[in-house]
Amino acid sequence: MIPYTIEAIARIRQRAPLIHNITNFVVMNSSANILLAIGASPVMAHCLAEMEEMTSLASALVLNIGTIEEDWLESMILAGKTANTLGIPVILDPVGAGATRLRTEAVRKIMENCSVTVLRGNCSEILSLAASDIKTKGVDSTLSLSDEMMEVAKQMAIDNECVIAISGEEDFVTDGDQVFRVRNGQPIMTRVTGTGCGLTAVTAAFCAVEEKNMAKATAAAFGFYGLCGDLAVQASNKPGSFQVAFLDQLYSTGAEEITRYLKVR
Amino acid sequence: MIPYTIEAIARIRQRAPLIHNITNFVVMNSSANILLAIGASPVMAHCLAEMEEMTSLASALVLNIGTIEEDWLESMILAGKTANTLGIPVILDPVGAGATRLRTEAVRKIMENCSVTVLRGNCSEILSLAASDIKTKGVDSTLSLSDEMMEVAKQMAIDNECVIAISGEEDFVTDGDQVFRVRNGQPIMTRVTGTGCGLTAVTAAFCAVEEKNMAKATAAAFGFYGLCGDLAVQASNKPGSFQVAFLDQLYSTGAEEITRYLKVR
Amino acid sequence: MIPYTIEAIARIRQRAPLIHNITNFVVMNSSANILLAIGASPVMAHCLAEMEEMTSLASALVLNIGTIEEDWLESMILAGKTANTLGIPVILDPVGAGATRLRTEAVRKIMENCSVTVLRGNCSEILSLAASDIKTKGVDSTLSLSDEMMEVAKQMAIDNECVIAISGEEDFVTDGDQVFRVRNGQPIMTRVTGTGCGLTAVTAAFCAVEEKNMAKATAAAFGFYGLCGDLAVQASNKPGSFQVAFLDQLYSTGAEEITRYLKVR
Repeated sequence: MIPYTIEAIARIRQRAPLIHNITNFVVMNSSANILLAIGASPVMAHCLAEMEEMTSLASALVLNIGTIEEDWLESMILAGKTANTLGIPVILDPVGAGATRLRTEAVRKIMENCSVTVLRGNCSEILSLAASDIKTKGVDSTLSLSDEMMEVAKQMAIDNECVIAISGEEDFVTDGDQVFRVRNGQPIMTRVTGTGCGLTAVTAAFCAVEEKNMAKATAAAFGFYGLCGDLAVQASNKPGSFQVAFLDQLYSTGAEEITRYLKVR
Repeated sequence: MIPYTIEAIARIRQRAPLIHNITNFVVMNSSANILLAIGASPVMAHCLAEMEEMTSLASALVLNIGTIEEDWLESMILAGKTANTLGIPVILDPVGAGATRLRTEAVRKIMENCSVTVLRGNCSEILSLAASDIKTKGVDSTLSLSDEMMEVAKQMAIDNECVIAISGEEDFVTDGDQVFRVRNGQPIMTRVTGTGCGLTAVTAAFCAVEEKNMAKATAAAFGFYGLCGDLAVQASNKPGSFQVAFLDQLYSTGAEEITRYLKVR
Repeated sequence: MIPYTIEAIARIRQRAPLIHNITNFVVMNSSANILLAIGASPVMAHCLAEMEEMTSLASALVLNIGTIEEDWLESMILAGKTANTLGIPVILDPVGAGATRLRTEAVRKIMENCSVTVLRGNCSEILSLAASDIKTKGVDSTLSLSDEMMEVAKQMAIDNECVIAISGEEDFVTDGDQVFRVRNGQPIMTRVTGTGCGLTAVTAAFCAVEEKNMAKATAAAFGFYGLCGDLAVQASNKPGSFQVAFLDQLYSTGAEEITRYLKVR
């Protein structure tokens, strides 16, 4: 994974892929800054009237339901269909799925109408989509990853022909066939809002510069992102100064740090 | 107040109460980060279709009219009613009340339809709700707190059976019976957007872990928050680096600092 | 330009002009913080029902189409008309004009219905409004400023009786008669979201304290803003810590730094 990750971040910095984000109000600013820091070019746009044009310009599409409304869902579906037609990867973040019916249904509608490339969430969000009896508390996970859940995730990946990527103490990425586990990342990241959503955006950027193996691109994104957290925490383990150091690391981390610290297998 | 405040912040960090925020676009990110920093669990959600479910999961509800629209007002009222039914505290921030009729009316409608636990604002916002001839300039206060205004605030607390909490050079918290004054806090906090709204969110977290005395919980929130500002300003008195230091302090401030620096009477 | 810029920032800090922003979701927080840092008083409000009242309280109006919707466009036009009636300067930021028809049309509608004081954007945004065959990639410029484009900009300024202000490696400000060029500013500013939108807001503050020469006020805003970037980059050339240092500089930069480092001619 080390040479792959080094090459992927280099490609992002060279090509500055445009990432079209239809995301929640909380993280629009932080996701844009995270994408700019890694060298991608973010655009946030949600109005139905410009969806086809905007998605067509992009190299990847992020759909994030964190503050979903009916109108926005319609835009997400149109953008997703446009991306599908053009072969642009679609990264879906099911924020709070399992917490309310609106959110669980929004994810289902998107997945029924669009082909999703990567579904990235925390354990209870992802599993609530597989089993309707799993309840999420707000937007934070109430579950840890068990062997049983990994099997459920693999089956979801196969059924939906997509990558399932679960964030947690150890991250888990699968397309049903390949399995990657990522041990980079720090607990303080859960004390900064938008860290998960930012990872979804970074995953989109890694997918934007990959032709075929989207599970591998996702695993590289998770490793790189977590590794930047590992380095930032050396500067500070408090959430204000950690955020600042993390953005700096996303901008400056390259081959040397990836070679020394990447923990993806 | 010192042992109470120490215990309250410890309870927040232990229980991580879910705080449901229906708040303005400007501060969604900063309020979420402030709540995460003190150990609470924020969720931002405003869609009518998920209000009952989301509020039901929460331990406190924040209503903030900073960028109010008609649709959002409807959601706020439904969330407020849900909170009332379940005995969940409702913290209302009347941002810019007195500046436009829309805002003043929005607050009136919320207070007619829901029982508000704490009304937190600056002096001109709060007083404009008591007297229609007080004009707010944008969202910043044009008034300082006088003895006469404190009497008006006490009467408002009695009439509305709620806590009235007024931010200013010295903060003033009353439920009509008890009166608390808070001398923590720094002028630089007025040069960072969302500081007032963040205090509203923190007040919600303190109310979420209090059973009965909401005025005391509010005063503790004000003291703790201002004290974190007092400590952060030692790191920097400029708004960029102050913000960073402030989030760090909200995360790390505990019994020792509270014992030494709390100024609530 | 040096004495003028010194006086302008002093006036902003003394008067704290209220700047009414109808802006995009991505930058609401950062624009508010930028305005607070320079000493202005920001308000973000977009609901049609309060547009006339809110704009009437303001000393300048910012219209920014970064996440435009139909409803918001209607509010922008009403706010713009209100500002025109009262002689309040209107600063328009055509974010992403040229990328989608919605955005290009939104700018045209605003300019048909309101008299715009300053139009501030990057090269491809501004030029796409002059020539329909210029295409913007997302919200980032795809063009650099050529002599031919400067002539087009001057003609646009004359035709629209407004100031045209183009951000780039060297900024270009003209009202068709006067021409200012600004060499302050740093490449890292393009790696922080909302930097351009923040400059639009700062331009509004400088126009709010100027009676007549809006091109000069705009050039002073550009010089001051870029200069703060020049100083902040000495603290850090990475996007997280640069942002923090930049806000600190906007707050503290005064006569001495302006005298030494302003590069406007």
